[in-house]
Amino acid sequence: MSGEAGRSARDSMVEMTEIVLPEDSNPRGAIFGGRVMALVDKCAAIAAHRHARSDVTTVSFDSVEFRHTVRVGTILILHGRLNAAFGSSMEIEVEVLAEDPNTGARTRTTHALVTMVALGPDGRPAKVPPLLALDDEDRRRAREAAGRRARRLAER
Amino acid sequence: MSGEAGRSARDSMVEMTEIVLPEDSNPRGAIFGGRVMALVDKCAAIAAHRHARSDVTTVSFDSVEFRHTVRVGTILILHGRLNAAFGSSMEIEVEVLAEDPNTGARTRTTHALVTMVALGPDGRPAKVPPLLALDDEDRRRAREAAGRRARRLAER
Amino acid sequence: MSGEAGRSARDSMVEMTEIVLPEDSNPRGAIFGGRVMALVDKCAAIAAHRHARSDVTTVSFDSVEFRHTVRVGTILILHGRLNAAFGSSMEIEVEVLAEDPNTGARTRTTHALVTMVALGPDGRPAKVPPLLALDDEDRRRAREAAGRRARRLAER
Amino acid sequence: MSGEAGRSARDSMVEMTEIVLPEDSNPRGAIFGGRVMALVDKCAAIAAHRHARSDVTTVSFDSVEFRHTVRVGTILILHGRLNAAFGSSMEIEVEVLAEDPNTGARTRTTHALVTMVALGPDGRPAKVPPLLALDDEDRRRAREAAGRRARRLAER
Amino acid sequence: MSGEAGRSARDSMVEMTEIVLPEDSNPRGAIFGGRVMALVDKCAAIAAHRHARSDVTTVSFDSVEFRHTVRVGTILILHGRLNAAFGSSMEIEVEVLAEDPNTGARTRTTHALVTMVALGPDGRPAKVPPLLALDDEDRRRAREAAGRRARRLAER
Amino acid sequence: MSGEAGRSARDSMVEMTEIVLPEDSNPRGAIFGGRVMALVDKCAAIAAHRHARSDVTTVSFDSVEFRHTVRVGTILILHGRLNAAFGSSMEIEVEVLAEDPNTGARTRTTHALVTMVALGPDGRPAKVPPLLALDDEDRRRAREAAGRRARRLAER
Repeated sequence: MSGEAGRSARDSMVEMTEIVLPEDSNPRGAIFGGRVMALVDKCAAIAAHRHARSDVTTVSFDSVEFRHTVRVGTILILHGRLNAAFGSSMEIEVEVLAEDPNTGARTRTTHALVTMVALGPDGRPAKVPPLLALDDEDRRRAREAAGRRARRLAER
Repeated sequence: MSGEAGRSARDSMVEMTEIVLPEDSNPRGAIFGGRVMALVDKCAAIAAHRHARSDVTTVSFDSVEFRHTVRVGTILILHGRLNAAFGSSMEIEVEVLAEDPNTGARTRTTHALVTMVALGPDGRPAKVPPLLALDDEDRRRAREAAGRRARRLAER
Repeated sequence: MSGEAGRSARDSMVEMTEIVLPEDSNPRGAIFGGRVMALVDKCAAIAAHRHARSDVTTVSFDSVEFRHTVRVGTILILHGRLNAAFGSSMEIEVEVLAEDPNTGARTRTTHALVTMVALGPDGRPAKVPPLLALDDEDRRRAREAAGRRARRLAER
Repeated sequence: MSGEAGRSARDSMVEMTEIVLPEDSNPRGAIFGGRVMALVDKCAAIAAHRHARSDVTTVSFDSVEFRHTVRVGTILILHGRLNAAFGSSMEIEVEVLAEDPNTGARTRTTHALVTMVALGPDGRPAKVPPLLALDDEDRRRAREAAGRRARRLAER
Repeated sequence: MSGEAGRSARDSMVEMTEIVLPEDSNPRGAIFGGRVMALVDKCAAIAAHRHARSDVTTVSFDSVEFRHTVRVGTILILHGRLNAAFGSSMEIEVEVLAEDPNTGARTRTTHALVTMVALGPDGRPAKVPPLLALDDEDRRRAREAAGRRARRLAER
Repeated sequence: MSGEAGRSARDSMVEMTEIVLPEDSNPRGAIFGGRVMALVDKCAAIAAHRHARSDVTTVSFDSVEFRHTVRVGTILILHGRLNAAFGSSMEIEVEVLAEDPNTGARTRTTHALVTMVALGPDGRPAKVPPLLALDDEDRRRAREAAGRRARRLAER
């Protein structure tokens, strides 16, 4: 696989599994929203790092909703994957599922769109390989990411 | 001050000061975006808790941008304040300033709008006191928060 | 899928991805062996919890070798899967791969066999569902685990 | 504001807000005295750093009393301010208030006097700007700090 | 050994060994004074818990000096031992030695006198067994602790 | 004591005391097996570092059994001591005792044999001083360690 020619989203996908511990939780035994955000950021950074093969830094989070409270003992599963690459920046989508360890039931807890920028050895933005679309799903994601990016740039 | 009659934003304002340590940073010595989000969430939760005088939980973050990299040794200052209260939910604005400890120069690093919901002893949403507007600035903030809330509800 | 009838190893497999941070490392920038063990234990516990659908506790680690030093910035990938279930105990195999984030090259760093016991609500060992073998690989793993268990019991 | 001409205590004041989490507490749900000391030390170091505009190191704590037990869920507010500057050393006073999040009632939990020394780029003590007294309160604090310092030096 | 008849200081002595890690240190690689205080508090609490055989809480620290900077990689050795028991309170002395791991040279870094109070199941102060003096050193320590206690009570 | 001539096991012995906190425990209040492994690794590394007077890295753990569940509030005591030195590698034995803080009763929880290798300034294995046997116990330990080493090498 040549990075010059590009990489597909599959090449940089990330799966993380965590279990919510007392140290991640507030006094009521529920995980902090901010702690989930920190996991989402880590997941997105690993996906971006894998695509860029260089250091990356977080540029923005799109709006994030927390659908329900996650309690101590819950298993969290995070899936991160690139939607699009634009020059030195990348949009990564992260899904967070909560799994009840006693029943195996999974519910979608959060969903985030994170923009990361690749950094060269001098700490400045550096170009990343193109993101190759392998199927219609890949093409739809890249198209929607491009739309969001256009709106973000227009809003500045 | 009677909670029934309402509280002003001044009554629940939060100021936090932190110094970025090696443990908060990635291998390049820059703080994680997710770590900043965790501080923002804590700051918003304390402001909401002070207004509601009950437990709170994070419902959503509006989109967040990180304007520049924050390095180990930087002082972070967070200001949290309520913009509006709607039934059981509250919009809190958090500003994050980075202060260079060797020059005292401060730059605005991040700015976030967080929605929190108050929880009663049964863990269900509970009404919060009204937010009293004391001046034009307070009224402007409440008006803009109401607009954002209307858009969010419309988008669902 | 009925837990009574048994579950296959596929049903409880775990994938974890971590990035080695300064806080996980010794003063030379290398991860502690003990920190890797803690990740291995967490991975094995999640797999066992998923199979048993109850709390679990660590009973033993088979001998573990660390093949090379893992440095700050490395991505660690852990795969956990059940080899066998015996009454209330389970043998879980965990593989740890180190991925160089700048080249994508992966090397096998550690490999561990962990025995976990399921606990009932009274905190005492509780039976777990049978582990269903779906193919020859599953059968080979169960056979080898049974051999190790026989040797362990004989050594006491 | 010229550092050469000196800075007032107002220029380096610090306010920190924290919420006591399970991870800060002992098995009974009460915060460790040592954990409060660590927060006090951080608050004093930020104030000293702001005044000196250079690295600082802790030299001593005057005796500290903990007036009552602080439990998980309590909000802690720390105020740090310089009392005096002597050559390369500074005396910083830190007050710790505990706020009951459900009533808003605040009680004074601890009060500490910390001596910090400024360090130059070579790691050796370095002179700090004079501390300008703006009012009688500032003058009283400087006078009392000078008395404590004289007693400390005499006791050696 | 009957707790009613009393216990000697030897029965509750504590030895702790720690290595200073990047996560305990400030951006210059030096341990925080507050982190040392947290270790001292933990050491004193274990000694007090062993003597009292009940929960304990920190009441005060006498003044503490930090003689030199401790850097990442240093081994810290803490020795805690009771000096005296008065009703429900105990004075514990903690010595902190820093050992250079490459030469074995040890230097005394800090020395602290901590007062702890034993708590009964109702969370209120509870009597502790007498502290038996076995030799002249034990008697000297108890005498000096009683003098400090008298001065502290007089100062209130 | 000359390092060239060798050091005895007594010269590098380590005693560590810890108290199990909520942050070390799973949602049921029991310490993680992996957390105990991390403490064992730290204890072994300090003993090896003291013998070698140089950096060390973990090479392997022999099989480890956890005899019973350790709960929040328990005091853990770890004793580490060298059994043998072979060129650049050392075998360290670590015993873990659990002490009930309310009765003082101690039980042996875990026992581990850890192999560490000394590293020179270039990060490559470096010879360590011979381990001097002072009595029959020392000689028995060295003999048994040599037998285990021979078996390990034969198994590769």
